Amino acid sequence: VRVGELSRRSGISLPSIKYYLREGLLPPGERTGPNQASYDEHHLRRLRLVRALIDVGGLSVAASREVLAAVDEPDRRLHDVLGQAQVGFTQTPPEHPAEAAPAAERARKRLDELLARRGWRVSGDNPARQTAVEVLMTYERLDQPDLLEMLDAYAEAIERLAHDEVALVVAQGERERVVESAVVGTVLGDTLLGALRRMAHEHASVQLLAPGGTGPG
Amino acid sequence: VRVGELSRRSGISLPSIKYYLREGLLPPGERTGPNQASYDEHHLRRLRLVRALIDVGGLSVAASREVLAAVDEPDRRLHDVLGQAQVGFTQTPPEHPAEAAPAAERARKRLDELLARRGWRVSGDNPARQTAVEVLMTYERLDQPDLLEMLDAYAEAIERLAHDEVALVVAQGERERVVESAVVGTVLGDTLLGALRRMAHEHASVQLLAPGGTGPG
Repeated sequence: VRVGELSRRSGISLPSIKYYLREGLLPPGERTGPNQASYDEHHLRRLRLVRALIDVGGLSVAASREVLAAVDEPDRRLHDVLGQAQVGFTQTPPEHPAEAAPAAERARKRLDELLARRGWRVSGDNPARQTAVEVLMTYERLDQPDLLEMLDAYAEAIERLAHDEVALVVAQGERERVVESAVVGTVLGDTLLGALRRMAHEHASVQLLAPGGTGPG
Repeated sequence: VRVGELSRRSGISLPSIKYYLREGLLPPGERTGPNQASYDEHHLRRLRLVRALIDVGGLSVAASREVLAAVDEPDRRLHDVLGQAQVGFTQTPPEHPAEAAPAAERARKRLDELLARRGWRVSGDNPARQTAVEVLMTYERLDQPDLLEMLDAYAEAIERLAHDEVALVVAQGERERVVESAVVGTVLGDTLLGALRRMAHEHASVQLLAPGGTGPG
């Protein structure tokens, strides 16, 4: 189909589609004339995925491009593709003053001990390690020891869920499906989990701050 | 202390501090001369909080400003402050074609049924509702029914944790501590939870894809 039809069927504006093409998020259509190209179901599907990653998952254009490149490499190990879905999520490491080295060491030790306690096998180059270390250092720097103590509760909450998620994704069978489910579930799952956490916070705070109350919390 | 000393003690560069002052993230120091101001412990603490929200929590400058404004309003109900910590997290709603209305309706119904099943009391204007609805619509649009089916598992995983988090924050007692813990725990907790989820995914995928394997996953 022509690009106008792609826009109509996806509900995504023409300028947005042209932007995604320029940025390499959407592969070019098949040339059918000097100023014309033809797009197929694959483009429509990819367009929806791009939109999901950026608008709902909150990934940057650059991060989305990296994730999609990983999706498109058939030889890429599934692990690595899943790891790539983290790019948009991991922030640039803050500048640490030299004095922060012992704090980083403490945070790394705390994380390693958690992983050992739970028996999680996590490779040394999983970028999530550094993300977790940054958060733990920040809790310490902000003098929030109670938040630090929640680490096990976080791991406990996520462990079973993560196992079920991976099992579900692997059960998709066909590689293209598996990879797409993994990317969508990883990126959008963060958003969904965060949203449910906010709602559960509201519910808990109604319970804890206004027990028995039925008015506005 | 002077601004140079504030920079030295926080490990945050002078240009960054000046930027935060211009952007209203850091309150101005007390004027001590035509080109001089003095800063205190409160500024140091606030500077660390700003840095945590932006660098580790991934909030935008605008979102951080809104969160901090909520922190500084002593009359603001704690609920509302916590709600504000969500601003940076909630994405701009995607453009929905008119055909999407029934899909939005289905997603809202799915969420309402979840909240009813779990007995969560969540106000109609909690912005997390819309975020969750967007994710559910996206799963449907991307033809990922299995991810949709995970909704209960997500809620189950987060429910107990969220209760413990709120209990811990409320136990801080003094309002300023409570609010700061709530903001830090809400924003950075998302980051930590996401990082642990990635690590748990790696562990689960080693278990499921290479059972018994000890080599690199």
